[in-house]
Amino acid sequence: MIKAGIFGASGYTGQELLRLLIRHPEVEVTFVTSRKFAGKEVAEAHPSLLQLTPLKFADAAPEELTSQADVVFLALPHGTFMNIAPVFFKSGLKVIDLSADFRLSHIAVYNQWYGRHNASDMIPSAAYGIPELWRDSIKASRLIANPGCYPTSVALGLAPLMGSDGIDYNSIIIDAKSGTSGAGREPQTGTLFCEVNEGFKSYKTGGQHRHIPEIEQSLARLSGKEITVSFTPHLLPVNRGILSTIYVNLNHAWKTGDLLDVWRRFYQDEPFVRICPEGIFPNLSSVRGTNYCDIGITVDIRTNRAIIVSAIDNLVKGAAGQAIQNMNLICGLPEDAGLHMVPLFP
Amino acid sequence: MIKAGIFGASGYTGQELLRLLIRHPEVEVTFVTSRKFAGKEVAEAHPSLLQLTPLKFADAAPEELTSQADVVFLALPHGTFMNIAPVFFKSGLKVIDLSADFRLSHIAVYNQWYGRHNASDMIPSAAYGIPELWRDSIKASRLIANPGCYPTSVALGLAPLMGSDGIDYNSIIIDAKSGTSGAGREPQTGTLFCEVNEGFKSYKTGGQHRHIPEIEQSLARLSGKEITVSFTPHLLPVNRGILSTIYVNLNHAWKTGDLLDVWRRFYQDEPFVRICPEGIFPNLSSVRGTNYCDIGITVDIRTNRAIIVSAIDNLVKGAAGQAIQNMNLICGLPEDAGLHMVPLFP
Amino acid sequence: MIKAGIFGASGYTGQELLRLLIRHPEVEVTFVTSRKFAGKEVAEAHPSLLQLTPLKFADAAPEELTSQADVVFLALPHGTFMNIAPVFFKSGLKVIDLSADFRLSHIAVYNQWYGRHNASDMIPSAAYGIPELWRDSIKASRLIANPGCYPTSVALGLAPLMGSDGIDYNSIIIDAKSGTSGAGREPQTGTLFCEVNEGFKSYKTGGQHRHIPEIEQSLARLSGKEITVSFTPHLLPVNRGILSTIYVNLNHAWKTGDLLDVWRRFYQDEPFVRICPEGIFPNLSSVRGTNYCDIGITVDIRTNRAIIVSAIDNLVKGAAGQAIQNMNLICGLPEDAGLHMVPLFP
Amino acid sequence: MIKAGIFGASGYTGQELLRLLIRHPEVEVTFVTSRKFAGKEVAEAHPSLLQLTPLKFADAAPEELTSQADVVFLALPHGTFMNIAPVFFKSGLKVIDLSADFRLSHIAVYNQWYGRHNASDMIPSAAYGIPELWRDSIKASRLIANPGCYPTSVALGLAPLMGSDGIDYNSIIIDAKSGTSGAGREPQTGTLFCEVNEGFKSYKTGGQHRHIPEIEQSLARLSGKEITVSFTPHLLPVNRGILSTIYVNLNHAWKTGDLLDVWRRFYQDEPFVRICPEGIFPNLSSVRGTNYCDIGITVDIRTNRAIIVSAIDNLVKGAAGQAIQNMNLICGLPEDAGLHMVPLFP
Repeated sequence: MIKAGIFGASGYTGQELLRLLIRHPEVEVTFVTSRKFAGKEVAEAHPSLLQLTPLKFADAAPEELTSQADVVFLALPHGTFMNIAPVFFKSGLKVIDLSADFRLSHIAVYNQWYGRHNASDMIPSAAYGIPELWRDSIKASRLIANPGCYPTSVALGLAPLMGSDGIDYNSIIIDAKSGTSGAGREPQTGTLFCEVNEGFKSYKTGGQHRHIPEIEQSLARLSGKEITVSFTPHLLPVNRGILSTIYVNLNHAWKTGDLLDVWRRFYQDEPFVRICPEGIFPNLSSVRGTNYCDIGITVDIRTNRAIIVSAIDNLVKGAAGQAIQNMNLICGLPEDAGLHMVPLFP
Repeated sequence: MIKAGIFGASGYTGQELLRLLIRHPEVEVTFVTSRKFAGKEVAEAHPSLLQLTPLKFADAAPEELTSQADVVFLALPHGTFMNIAPVFFKSGLKVIDLSADFRLSHIAVYNQWYGRHNASDMIPSAAYGIPELWRDSIKASRLIANPGCYPTSVALGLAPLMGSDGIDYNSIIIDAKSGTSGAGREPQTGTLFCEVNEGFKSYKTGGQHRHIPEIEQSLARLSGKEITVSFTPHLLPVNRGILSTIYVNLNHAWKTGDLLDVWRRFYQDEPFVRICPEGIFPNLSSVRGTNYCDIGITVDIRTNRAIIVSAIDNLVKGAAGQAIQNMNLICGLPEDAGLHMVPLFP
Repeated sequence: MIKAGIFGASGYTGQELLRLLIRHPEVEVTFVTSRKFAGKEVAEAHPSLLQLTPLKFADAAPEELTSQADVVFLALPHGTFMNIAPVFFKSGLKVIDLSADFRLSHIAVYNQWYGRHNASDMIPSAAYGIPELWRDSIKASRLIANPGCYPTSVALGLAPLMGSDGIDYNSIIIDAKSGTSGAGREPQTGTLFCEVNEGFKSYKTGGQHRHIPEIEQSLARLSGKEITVSFTPHLLPVNRGILSTIYVNLNHAWKTGDLLDVWRRFYQDEPFVRICPEGIFPNLSSVRGTNYCDIGITVDIRTNRAIIVSAIDNLVKGAAGQAIQNMNLICGLPEDAGLHMVPLFP
Repeated sequence: MIKAGIFGASGYTGQELLRLLIRHPEVEVTFVTSRKFAGKEVAEAHPSLLQLTPLKFADAAPEELTSQADVVFLALPHGTFMNIAPVFFKSGLKVIDLSADFRLSHIAVYNQWYGRHNASDMIPSAAYGIPELWRDSIKASRLIANPGCYPTSVALGLAPLMGSDGIDYNSIIIDAKSGTSGAGREPQTGTLFCEVNEGFKSYKTGGQHRHIPEIEQSLARLSGKEITVSFTPHLLPVNRGILSTIYVNLNHAWKTGDLLDVWRRFYQDEPFVRICPEGIFPNLSSVRGTNYCDIGITVDIRTNRAIIVSAIDNLVKGAAGQAIQNMNLICGLPEDAGLHMVPLFP
């Protein structure tokens, strides 16, 4: 059994890690931390986990925890872990950081979008964790930068086309919509029920969202080109899910079937990517609670644009599920261990 | 491996059976039927199950299917199966009927609430399937009347008190609230999104709902007394879940802790009943997707009433999950096989 | 034109007062206050009111504002206004307090449920503001204690039966369900979108909610008897609305039609109470955005209980609308001025 | 008083017309028709309108109704009215058709997207009814083609830029999201609560939606150029509202403030268009129940694209409200009569 700890386990991502790890056949969760809930049972923060785990939250320093786990998940916002990840990493543990801290390779880009980085010496050790795209580098690493939710949906949606000479690389527009759990569990007026329910809006409109450099970095790696995208996130009145509608101008006169073939081949051995049949497009309902990325593709022949729709559960493939997929890889477990959830619909 | 068929598999209950059986370690689903989707892949009716099963819907007569399964789930409304259940049953299959057809022991009561019964000779063979309450008779049977969703939440909520001389048996009031999946998947104006969303109402108000005789039958069996209850169902704008708030006048001056002890002892070995700690009450969110029944109890000392709050997922413990629990029992499998889901929150 | 000020206008009740007063034909809003938004335009707190009012939030002491209005609405939680209401009142303004501070006649009861009262000398001057029940005392007063949302729905629902010898006064059970705006706009984990959406729960279960003494006070006034009720509130995943399902044991063998006649006569001249036809029961959707209280009644002949279902919009008849109705009364305007909203459905 | 009839009044648009016309100061509704509810009170179809109108539904032929109204609203899907609109029109009534039948000037385009047109001789008489853009032709007409909901949001969003030489007319991409009332009140599996709630998906993806020719016709009229757009609609789990996120490549290096000035000037005298301040973008919540179109604009300087976000209530500015605005114009009433609703939030 792999021993796993979760640092920062009182939020939605921490809960989702617990939901999945509690039933993981090869993992035992050995500690969970929370400053706010220190000393309390897990069910006080997460009533749905009543009687499902004997764990209590610790408020321990990372130094005290290094001996208790083989792998540690860091599940708090960016910046928080800059002094914590190194402790675990340098003690020899495997570290999966769900924050943005180690996702961007270029420190200057990080500083521009997120502010000053305190552990930049560790950046070269980190592997960016989308297994479908960079499995080998993940397996070779001990520090995984678990990707952002939006970037996961976009990179998986666009990957099969990156490098092709049949598209206009300056034309990529991503119109993305996220469920509200993506905003976290900290109380804020903007995520109160009455503010979100029956509403819909864009936010960080016009090239403002911090996931943009992460998206562009992935597309650059896949294509070998510098790519600048338009990315507009929107807030959906649903608990879970990200759906990205992606527009790309085509240089060739491809048919929908041609593109579908490209995507199907690209992902033919992937257990967590489902390509929708022609004429069918993803629905957030169909990936709920699972590690699937569903992708639908069509060519708008009136404008010769490809429209790619990519859907994930932001808390699973967009966070905890992908983290566990990465853990499986770096711990030598079957990549899909503990990730066989069937979508919960309705 | 047990071979299981699902007769009537295009609705929400059919889908939920598939969701759970696809991952059941001891079961293989051998057929699913649907008139509407005959010949089509499961994912045409249930897009969330894309690529998760090779099955196609059949539109076969029950006679043609008897050789294909050990156990058959009947998942359509009452009345539909009166000519179907006997075919499977008399061919020696185990039958789990999720309709109301075999739940009421007294044919006169059935006729009064549901209309004429065509297979009343089979009623004596049926066991009413709440394992926590009537496990032995279930194990001894080959025809399970899978209980209604409301009756399950009420019987589990009240059972520990039934037979006690400390309550007023004429005082039981059940104010119940159900998610919309309980109304099924047939298109109706009343269950359109815009009719339900942001609304809330009672329905079949004033002793009209067909689950009343089923509730009263369970309470009578548990207590040995004839009991008449007030039961008011309400329609909640959520997908899943039933929460019943139950009021009972007490004759004794019990404290909340006394009652909690009674409930805890009653359910101490039950894997699917969770008694909430004192001061904590169930939330539909905490049982979503699972076979749990969560129960919270308090005494309103101002009025000397017990208030019992009972929550289940209507599609799981209220339908497909309990059906599989019953299947496990009558097929000699561990009772909790395939039912280890952790609640999906948020 | 009546000049009206709103003290504490950045929350949901303040916004609702603005929504209604902006279009009130006889009222001009002269000031709105907010500490948090001091100096900012109304639309910064309430984006929906963009360009609909030239007002900015003030953060002034009440002493500075007394000359600017004829009537002032106080729209913050209980306790907050104990030092503010007297300033306005003693300056001769009409005061409508939407908090709980002046609702309870007996200071001991207030102290028991809310804590220490600092302005108890003003309690005798206050009129409890449900116009349908106590119109004369409201008209005679200059300090209105605007009722709580739950108590309004219950008092209007039960009033026609209070004083009758045909009911058991010890049997009243109120199972109430509220939309989330009732919890206010202060950021709290418990009212985040993801916590409430797709969930449902009771809260303050077992005689704990502060609206209980207010409900019992109203029923006592109407009946001339001391009455103790069971009251269980629940949190609904909708923005607006309160629906109370009320159970009362009957001593007489009334039919539904008999009771409907009683209610219809009682409210025959009331513009804001709608009695549903026999067999029809209220839906929160049907009162949304309006000052209506919809009431449905039936007799459960199996148990000889009356079931009364009462629905209001908690922000309108349960707060801002009733406050304006009271303002109209004490300012000599037509009682329904500015309150002719038609329900917004869907 | 203007006498107005509504032909086809049992759906959501019919109800919304009633909601607004019941309070319109210059209009009396003289008839409402419905085949399904013939002879029944309005509240049987629309419970929220209980006691708000004495009208009953008629199921009369148009010939029998021509004498009863000055203006008639036709509120059913396209095709339905082809034999009805001419009767009213040729009898001299003013006709406002909320279907698509008279929106497209070119019969060939209609036939291509909608099928055969039976009343094409009337097309030249029709004015396309977005008052902010084509007020004069509306005033000069007696047959108004009331625009589609999506096309209204797009035309108002883009109009100020049409004709400019600073944009790439081949680059327009519209990513639109609609509330579920846009799908109408006919029972369908796809718009059941459980299918929509907690879900999100695109539909008619890839240049398939019938509103595309209507959008392109408006943009062509405004710009004098043939324009082909990419348009992808999505289904939102909210009752009301359309939000369109529109992307346009810029040829000039405009700043956000430059564009905002253009929009503000263009709409400076319009009562129903609100341009959001810089950095603020529309939210469906802020237009709910009103005739407003809220527009937010920014320049994504990284890609030199304008991003325009336009929000309306699909049942008001996207249907009934705009219809009444058109009625006001052609009946010589103040354009905003009866349309002073303040948004309902939350």
